Amino acid sequence: MKEETSMKNKGIGFSKAVDFGESGTLFEEKELAMPELTSQLDVIVKVLASAVNPVDVKMAEAYQGHDFTVLGFDGVGEVMAVGDDVLGFEHGDRVYYAGQQLRSGTNQVYQAVDSRLIAKAPANLTLSESAALPLTGITAYEILTDALGLAISEGVATGKTILIVNGAGGVGSILIQLAKFIGLQVITTASRPESVEWVKSLGADIVLNHHEDLGMQLKEFGIDQLPYIVLLHSTDKYWNLATHYIAPFGRIASIVETEGLLDMGPLKNIGAQFAWEFMFAKGNFDIRMAEQGQALAKLTDLIESGKLKTTLTKTYKGFSAETLEAAYRDVASNHMIGKVVIVY
Amino acid sequence: MKEETSMKNKGIGFSKAVDFGESGTLFEEKELAMPELTSQLDVIVKVLASAVNPVDVKMAEAYQGHDFTVLGFDGVGEVMAVGDDVLGFEHGDRVYYAGQQLRSGTNQVYQAVDSRLIAKAPANLTLSESAALPLTGITAYEILTDALGLAISEGVATGKTILIVNGAGGVGSILIQLAKFIGLQVITTASRPESVEWVKSLGADIVLNHHEDLGMQLKEFGIDQLPYIVLLHSTDKYWNLATHYIAPFGRIASIVETEGLLDMGPLKNIGAQFAWEFMFAKGNFDIRMAEQGQALAKLTDLIESGKLKTTLTKTYKGFSAETLEAAYRDVASNHMIGKVVIVY
Repeated sequence: MKEETSMKNKGIGFSKAVDFGESGTLFEEKELAMPELTSQLDVIVKVLASAVNPVDVKMAEAYQGHDFTVLGFDGVGEVMAVGDDVLGFEHGDRVYYAGQQLRSGTNQVYQAVDSRLIAKAPANLTLSESAALPLTGITAYEILTDALGLAISEGVATGKTILIVNGAGGVGSILIQLAKFIGLQVITTASRPESVEWVKSLGADIVLNHHEDLGMQLKEFGIDQLPYIVLLHSTDKYWNLATHYIAPFGRIASIVETEGLLDMGPLKNIGAQFAWEFMFAKGNFDIRMAEQGQALAKLTDLIESGKLKTTLTKTYKGFSAETLEAAYRDVASNHMIGKVVIVY
Repeated sequence: MKEETSMKNKGIGFSKAVDFGESGTLFEEKELAMPELTSQLDVIVKVLASAVNPVDVKMAEAYQGHDFTVLGFDGVGEVMAVGDDVLGFEHGDRVYYAGQQLRSGTNQVYQAVDSRLIAKAPANLTLSESAALPLTGITAYEILTDALGLAISEGVATGKTILIVNGAGGVGSILIQLAKFIGLQVITTASRPESVEWVKSLGADIVLNHHEDLGMQLKEFGIDQLPYIVLLHSTDKYWNLATHYIAPFGRIASIVETEGLLDMGPLKNIGAQFAWEFMFAKGNFDIRMAEQGQALAKLTDLIESGKLKTTLTKTYKGFSAETLEAAYRDVASNHMIGKVVIVY
């Protein structure tokens, strides 16, 4: 770590809950201590670009403490130092990662990250194109593998259909592509013309309007059962639809917490299962963390071989409170298509 | 099927809902047509013994039709005829099976069964010892594999713990043994002294009293997290306990339908999953049916190699309305330890 002794770190964050309804400056910039390797599995990364995700907005809004807090869970950067137990990475590697919810995030110049969570960034993408991918890419990957029991292998699910409610957001945009890659027919939902166009450009086969009755629309396509259903919006609202349409031995996944309780009865006698996906669970509990680095390495392969493309739709230049706030406000609007990134 | 042309079939069943609170004769005996191979995957079995399960009682109580109905989902018998597409079985084989909910059951002399659901009965067991096993054995097997994601392989789960709520019943009695076989530490619940003794004899490591506070008892054993929890009784009642004690990335399974909705929230951010097990789902939907014959073949191996023992605790002799009713009443009492069988 010698080379960092004279370096300065800088972070952009907040010290109290953020209200994105307010105008004016929400974030502040602070000089920070240089991060240290807290374990010999850590690397220190110079962050070069970062995306904003809905989880940043939620965490900023819900913050109850008084300490200066730096979020950011999508980073691409250059490895500056590696712990003694780090395998596969060295100084100068360009890596990307989502990191851990419990550690200081990507909204700083230098960041310590557990090396089990990182992978080399795709060589054929720009910084901003890469930064768009990790958190949503891992989430989509785990939805298919952990929650739906599928393998990420080309064509393995050919002949089967997946319904993805809300396909145009960050997770949906990469999930549509991964689902197509493994052979699934993809039915997704969107409402605005630009969202519909976007999900079609990603490979969606059928696009339903989630502002109209989805059951009626499925009926029009002659669909009365689906082996895979993923809820990326309003789990409570779509639960009856999901349990009504799920096929025997089908799988339902959701990433959106419920307001109320769920009627699990319809799944009881048909061999169907439901599972949550929460990307931070592995990092929060230090369980199977290496799977996330492996998932990202697989995404890099798929990007480099042209099977997947970035979900980047908007880029801000320069690491400042202004660019970060603008990106947060884009995500907080709930109308973001694809992903927004800040290049530092 | 030539040899059956002169044979007569006989069944014992009912033509209206059965009330086990009534005294007197509940079932009637009828001459039935000889069963036929409805597909070339079927075999015709001469039934030699049958067990009664809680599902028989529930189905008899809930019956809403007027046709003479023959239940019975645990059979051991001799193969009398095989369809052209049957693999691995021939005339004279002694087989056992749970069969299908939608077909006429074991409470008759001759029965048609799909060969994918059967296996050769353990050579070292009596008829009644074998008849005790199929439905509960498959259920326990699927709880571990399909619902909890475990392999049925000796010692594979060593170092981990499973809580089985209500261990002394039919499913619990075989599940305790299978769990021990794969290496799990088994905590189960029972209340009566004879139930406690029974589950200990099957290998249970810790026995809690489900009439006392289970959380307090777990605390006394220093247990605050469990990777595997199985509810074989009162899912609603034990749900809070299960979601409180389930470890990150743990698995909860249940075979008992709920009265109300379930709070899935506690599982949201910890990577934990819940799954139902319903033994008849594969047969009802003709999905992955061969897995049930394979599960029974595995159970036969384990029985013959001394790794598992029968869960038989009570036997009635002779196939009559009286013996069948007595066995049904034993199960309807909800105090059955292990399994009750009628030898025909």
